[in-house]
Amino acid sequence: MRIGIVAKPGLADARDTLDRLRGWLADRGLEAAWSPEAAALLTASGAPVVERDDLPAISDLIVVLGGDGTLLAMADRIARGPRDVPILGVNFGSLGFLTEITRPEIFTALAEVVEGRAQHDERMVLSAAVRRDGTLTDTTVVLNDVVFTRTALSRIIDLSVWVGDQFVTTVRADGLIVASPTGSTAYNLAAGGPIVHPAMEAFLLTPIAPHTLSHRPIVVPAARDVRVAITPANGGAEVYVTFDGQTGQPLGPGDEVVVGRAARSVKLVRATTRTYFEVLRQKLKWGER
Amino acid sequence: MRIGIVAKPGLADARDTLDRLRGWLADRGLEAAWSPEAAALLTASGAPVVERDDLPAISDLIVVLGGDGTLLAMADRIARGPRDVPILGVNFGSLGFLTEITRPEIFTALAEVVEGRAQHDERMVLSAAVRRDGTLTDTTVVLNDVVFTRTALSRIIDLSVWVGDQFVTTVRADGLIVASPTGSTAYNLAAGGPIVHPAMEAFLLTPIAPHTLSHRPIVVPAARDVRVAITPANGGAEVYVTFDGQTGQPLGPGDEVVVGRAARSVKLVRATTRTYFEVLRQKLKWGER
Amino acid sequence: MRIGIVAKPGLADARDTLDRLRGWLADRGLEAAWSPEAAALLTASGAPVVERDDLPAISDLIVVLGGDGTLLAMADRIARGPRDVPILGVNFGSLGFLTEITRPEIFTALAEVVEGRAQHDERMVLSAAVRRDGTLTDTTVVLNDVVFTRTALSRIIDLSVWVGDQFVTTVRADGLIVASPTGSTAYNLAAGGPIVHPAMEAFLLTPIAPHTLSHRPIVVPAARDVRVAITPANGGAEVYVTFDGQTGQPLGPGDEVVVGRAARSVKLVRATTRTYFEVLRQKLKWGER
Amino acid sequence: MRIGIVAKPGLADARDTLDRLRGWLADRGLEAAWSPEAAALLTASGAPVVERDDLPAISDLIVVLGGDGTLLAMADRIARGPRDVPILGVNFGSLGFLTEITRPEIFTALAEVVEGRAQHDERMVLSAAVRRDGTLTDTTVVLNDVVFTRTALSRIIDLSVWVGDQFVTTVRADGLIVASPTGSTAYNLAAGGPIVHPAMEAFLLTPIAPHTLSHRPIVVPAARDVRVAITPANGGAEVYVTFDGQTGQPLGPGDEVVVGRAARSVKLVRATTRTYFEVLRQKLKWGER
Repeated sequence: MRIGIVAKPGLADARDTLDRLRGWLADRGLEAAWSPEAAALLTASGAPVVERDDLPAISDLIVVLGGDGTLLAMADRIARGPRDVPILGVNFGSLGFLTEITRPEIFTALAEVVEGRAQHDERMVLSAAVRRDGTLTDTTVVLNDVVFTRTALSRIIDLSVWVGDQFVTTVRADGLIVASPTGSTAYNLAAGGPIVHPAMEAFLLTPIAPHTLSHRPIVVPAARDVRVAITPANGGAEVYVTFDGQTGQPLGPGDEVVVGRAARSVKLVRATTRTYFEVLRQKLKWGER
Repeated sequence: MRIGIVAKPGLADARDTLDRLRGWLADRGLEAAWSPEAAALLTASGAPVVERDDLPAISDLIVVLGGDGTLLAMADRIARGPRDVPILGVNFGSLGFLTEITRPEIFTALAEVVEGRAQHDERMVLSAAVRRDGTLTDTTVVLNDVVFTRTALSRIIDLSVWVGDQFVTTVRADGLIVASPTGSTAYNLAAGGPIVHPAMEAFLLTPIAPHTLSHRPIVVPAARDVRVAITPANGGAEVYVTFDGQTGQPLGPGDEVVVGRAARSVKLVRATTRTYFEVLRQKLKWGER
Repeated sequence: MRIGIVAKPGLADARDTLDRLRGWLADRGLEAAWSPEAAALLTASGAPVVERDDLPAISDLIVVLGGDGTLLAMADRIARGPRDVPILGVNFGSLGFLTEITRPEIFTALAEVVEGRAQHDERMVLSAAVRRDGTLTDTTVVLNDVVFTRTALSRIIDLSVWVGDQFVTTVRADGLIVASPTGSTAYNLAAGGPIVHPAMEAFLLTPIAPHTLSHRPIVVPAARDVRVAITPANGGAEVYVTFDGQTGQPLGPGDEVVVGRAARSVKLVRATTRTYFEVLRQKLKWGER
Repeated sequence: MRIGIVAKPGLADARDTLDRLRGWLADRGLEAAWSPEAAALLTASGAPVVERDDLPAISDLIVVLGGDGTLLAMADRIARGPRDVPILGVNFGSLGFLTEITRPEIFTALAEVVEGRAQHDERMVLSAAVRRDGTLTDTTVVLNDVVFTRTALSRIIDLSVWVGDQFVTTVRADGLIVASPTGSTAYNLAAGGPIVHPAMEAFLLTPIAPHTLSHRPIVVPAARDVRVAITPANGGAEVYVTFDGQTGQPLGPGDEVVVGRAARSVKLVRATTRTYFEVLRQKLKWGER
């Protein structure tokens, strides 16, 4: 069994945990593959280093140390990759929606994985492809969301939305979020969208600051693709699409983005000590007075 | 084939449509069973009258003339009944979310049903049972929602919520809506909840005026029951539960309501001339300037 | 100078503070008048007791120990009373929007008042009168809000609203809040209303779960009265009006409530150690991660 | 009396109205000054043309034909200018919040102005100045709003807000709107802000998609300036500020924008046939079923 280790670059206070992790794996005869950022945080040199892009192909488990952003970037790599590799996400700051295992729990959680006792959450992944002049570009895969926004200089934008072959509406707004259930607790929450349990197979369509006050977030089944088109009559307003907040590109009139369900889902090692709802309560400070 | 006909009591301008419907059915040799309210609107007497409670057992299709409220009451009767009877809902006022067939379309839609060409929407139905002193009461079935509210005189109430055996949170609020996808466009919309496509198998938990500003509507899979308990420490505040806004009862400290998926769903005859999203656009005035 | 002292009945852990307060006042030769609830918490008997209703007429300052609810009830008594008596609100639980002085700060704050160095917040007070059959009832004064709600059994209600002689709209909703700026951080926040700085002279009209999705809270100048009428065509739905969540009465079709600015405002002794915005940040947990 | 006339460039179906307006003014011996865009729409040449920037100095009334955007641009010019010139705004599309006079009403409204019978709405204007490296730039004046937004490529931004010398909070969001009461029905509504009656003297602070779910719009008195600072620790995220959605500039870490009340307000000729609330009802489709 080979364990890939990824860390947020320059992660503070991580050296001790990483050194202990190195020892823990060696003690059990488990092979390790360290991303350059993770290896750079180890006290002693000599650890085997593998680029993050190459880890999914050679790892049986990937441990991510950092925050939700670090895990998100790795999840997208796994979803694009050739194999089904579970992720164990350890948060180094406050509890994360994705990195729900805390530092003190890391070795217990690892032992559960190694001994085959761990439980996994299957998280649906989105695929997104831009269609321009009738041609579909390469497919991007994202765990959280595909976000359409106006640029700072442009005025309000018009986005036409279809679910399968059914026209939904034209949204006049600052933008539109197409989110997975996992992404429902990310940017979607700030835009006023609902929480969708990650076991749902659904897409979430949430307008950002819609001009029409009766627009509301819509949850639709993941069985049919969602298509978003930049309205030609948009008066030259610039639209930008971003994938998991990490990459993006400008879109022009007539361009379309097709969002569907990716062939592969992502497996997150679940913290046995807390449920999904407990993470929600902690992150959103429910119940505090 | 026997057609049951139900009408909103005293429905204005319905006489002509009902008389023509009587003739249309007779011309085709189809048997009719009229609810007392519908029969009262016919010009000529002599039509076979059957109580609304008895229609589900003897009808192969039930035509509802009126609005969403009239259809809702009939849908609940069918969901409790012994057979799977489709409903054809005809609105006599503005377009309804449930009664999406308009008066001019009635005979075309009927012909499609009779000739076996009609399409149906399967709508998930909720079951709800009150548990008091450890004993579950009879199960109520509802198409839209189970709503918990404070009474006008009582102060804010505390409701504890579970999904399956997982504790979600205690909601301190004016109330809580547990809705089906069909109910997402009813009271839930007014309380700030999202639209959930009726093909989803989900429960929607929407707090009403929650004290904690970070509470948000949550969409959960219908596979597990939702349980709502009246917190004993509630200071004697009175809580009331209503089923589809039609019946209800007061609840006391320690009482629980278990909401699950009913064994039977309800079949609505679909208007072939408009999609679900077109009904949304019209009802919510999207796209008007 | 005579100081009135009011405490929440049965206030936990207050004995020591109250005993010290008694000594502090005696040391400075200041007269005290204790509400029965406050006197009951003192270790030694013999303190002069005055009913809460009679305190405004004889006090130069009223110290309230408890929470926002206790202060609210006293503020309404002062606003109805004959004299302009400042209130020093000390919270015994979490920080309050109204009781913004903490226990450790009580004697510093008292010294500032006695020495004439204290600053006051003038808080606008609402007056409300019910008009039935053309006759205005006695006027109620409230610091926070006048709230119209449906009863649990009734369906949605229709409320017609005027500002001065201008018709605003008919709100179809669960209810309507007419709040002062002070009341903007009370029930209004839960219903989705904005925060209005207490130095504003304004009324805040916030619908509760409005049926029309484009309804929004409206802030209007306090110069003109707000009038809310129960629509006769309301189908017999019951409406209830509550004043500061403490008293109330049922309303029928044709009844009207006129909300204006009360002749007297209420003076709150300001904590010199924290601003209004700091209280907001703490109470609403802004800035926490 | 000299009347300035401004029209939206290329305004459809305006020729006839403008020709009649030319005749109407000539018949009454009133001098006219036509903006180039307005003059270009007249059938006959020879009308006196004055640039829009120069109209405020020489006009006693400015008639704006078009929509809210055209009026906004002219209002900003008047507020910066030397004289107090009322505006008569005529909408050529749907009713506007600012251009509340319809085409059939134009000559009635003009007659009221000329005969001194017209009523005016005084609308508070905002002044905004950017402070960089301790130096305040030129002041911009705006009728609606000063808007801070992230750029499409940048992540969430941090904006620190003060009212006078009191710190309010640091908003982590897509942006922040500082609006006048007039601007409350513009972009602010889409971002979830309340309606503030234009007779109020207030600033409205509305966060756009705030990360902290308990953030709410805040209404503060216009007596004290609002200051918004770009947090240095912003990680290089780009912030853009726009003035009435018409002009703007990028801001960097440490830059501040000070928003206050402009010395001059703007006078809008009021349609005697409809109140402010009637415009709200029509624009927001209240009361429609």
